[in-house]
Amino acid sequence: MSQRQEASPVGLHRVLEPTGVLPQAAQRLDTSRELWPDEVRIRVERLNLDAASFRQLERTHADGDAVRRAVLDIVTERGKMQNPETGSGGMLVGTVEEVGPESPLGLEVGDRVTTLVSLTLTPLVIEDGLAGWDGRSEQVPCDGYAVLFGRSIVAVIPDDLPAELSLSVMDVCGAPALTARVVASYDEPVVAVVGGAGKSGSLSLAAAKVAGARTTIGVVPHQAEADLLGDAHVADVVAVADARDPVALAEAVAAAGGPADVTVVCVDVPGCEGGAILATAEGGTVVFFSMATSFSAAALGAEGLAADVTMLVGNGYVPGHADYALSLLRDHAGVRSLFERRL
Amino acid sequence: MSQRQEASPVGLHRVLEPTGVLPQAAQRLDTSRELWPDEVRIRVERLNLDAASFRQLERTHADGDAVRRAVLDIVTERGKMQNPETGSGGMLVGTVEEVGPESPLGLEVGDRVTTLVSLTLTPLVIEDGLAGWDGRSEQVPCDGYAVLFGRSIVAVIPDDLPAELSLSVMDVCGAPALTARVVASYDEPVVAVVGGAGKSGSLSLAAAKVAGARTTIGVVPHQAEADLLGDAHVADVVAVADARDPVALAEAVAAAGGPADVTVVCVDVPGCEGGAILATAEGGTVVFFSMATSFSAAALGAEGLAADVTMLVGNGYVPGHADYALSLLRDHAGVRSLFERRL
Repeated sequence: MSQRQEASPVGLHRVLEPTGVLPQAAQRLDTSRELWPDEVRIRVERLNLDAASFRQLERTHADGDAVRRAVLDIVTERGKMQNPETGSGGMLVGTVEEVGPESPLGLEVGDRVTTLVSLTLTPLVIEDGLAGWDGRSEQVPCDGYAVLFGRSIVAVIPDDLPAELSLSVMDVCGAPALTARVVASYDEPVVAVVGGAGKSGSLSLAAAKVAGARTTIGVVPHQAEADLLGDAHVADVVAVADARDPVALAEAVAAAGGPADVTVVCVDVPGCEGGAILATAEGGTVVFFSMATSFSAAALGAEGLAADVTMLVGNGYVPGHADYALSLLRDHAGVRSLFERRL
Repeated sequence: MSQRQEASPVGLHRVLEPTGVLPQAAQRLDTSRELWPDEVRIRVERLNLDAASFRQLERTHADGDAVRRAVLDIVTERGKMQNPETGSGGMLVGTVEEVGPESPLGLEVGDRVTTLVSLTLTPLVIEDGLAGWDGRSEQVPCDGYAVLFGRSIVAVIPDDLPAELSLSVMDVCGAPALTARVVASYDEPVVAVVGGAGKSGSLSLAAAKVAGARTTIGVVPHQAEADLLGDAHVADVVAVADARDPVALAEAVAAAGGPADVTVVCVDVPGCEGGAILATAEGGTVVFFSMATSFSAAALGAEGLAADVTMLVGNGYVPGHADYALSLLRDHAGVRSLFERRL
């Protein structure tokens, strides 16, 4: 193995252009097969494209063949799967093929794993021309290899759960871990989870209870979801409100036992910032996990309401987050039922 | 006084359309002169238009007269000064004219005040046609009235400082207050302030030291600003780096005594998220005060770097923030010098 330059745990040594940026911001990555000492190479079996990226490709291209060609072109040109229009990537499933002698990830050859960092920063080579994919689904069967850095995040797929279920949990595993940490910093808080019947929402409700919440409130947009969440017994109280209507959301949370000391936003619709702030008690915390969150709407909204609340950007990484989310699923039949009906 | 409906501390009773939204999101506010019991009416002497809003108006209209007419039209139509293109407003200076019997703001008739909530949610009537304004500056002499709600934020302009200096401090007073709170939650942390020579930056550096920082690092983009900040003796160490270059920023902070336990982002340029995260130690906190912050860049950036950092949306409201910022200015001649050269 030729030593070219010192390896960076965040993959700076794999950035070809422009120089000096992080791999996620790079136009092109070095996909050399040979590893730096702290890297790991994965034999890829499937790519899961980000939903926003796949929809954009479907809209732009005439048919599945054209979508497949577009993905091949992107990966060939950039050395990673990052849709230039949406900026997003996805994740991958595969098997560990080689482990560098200095890798800190604790993996062994043969481990079946999924990446928890985005494809947008993962060096990737497709070797089968995506021959097994019809270009009509986000699930892309694929033969090729990918490279993980020293600080990449990866999870071994457990044996006791169906792989699809595990992947579905790992996809949102940052939310329950951070929710648990925030909830534990309060004394028996009231916790409201907006979008409580969804994947990250139901896990966050379970995490909040385990972490010491006095009351958990699951907020959902309509009665059908309320019935679903009620039957799953994941929340202490279920409330129905349109999260984009600040007054309605705040009143629904108040009627359910609020205001909330901790409000967790898990719905991917724009315009939920004001309601989340208004539903939260003075001295409380709002955790925004929705990628539809507007930074300025949150900052100006709290100021406009003279609301002394802490607002967190939902960091998708908390150490141990994948194992924690899987254990919540194993221990809560209701959470598992909500996940299984989405597979 | 006719009692129409119950007053809401956040001004919902003044929203005319669409119904149910917060005043900031409203198309049109009720500007009735008569007060609800918890409101305060201000005799306005000056509007300070938000810089982004004023630039948009200047670009769109032929001359100062047209800009003036545009502002008058907006305020007449909407009952508040909110530029429909930029969404932003500004603040106002005036004198308390009437205090409702249930107002919790602690104001007295005759107090000279400035609002610390945006004009985008403040009912406003202009009575002089802006006759004293040439439409060529963000500072708008104005006779008219504005209404404050129960939860509005307002500060009395102190007698011992020039009014312009006080206003300039109050404009950014959320940053030092929140910085102090975060710094105090750590044990003698290293604190880096990106944009340390600016208004919010220099106040945040001073606040960090008072709140117990072991070392404060002021990061600036070039040597001229480094000299300025060095002469002001506001930071323990001054570092020069382009905040948009993650590796350069992280290396500069590391060389200055980092990584930082607390990183405060005060520069209004896009693309600083990755560098701020990379410059921060595991378990540390990044506070984003820049309105140019991208929520998704912060969330995905931390995940991509496997960085276990807490990321805060810089809430512009912390109780007592205006008085705290003014006291920092009085106690730190260096901070004052940085402010005075900007007036």
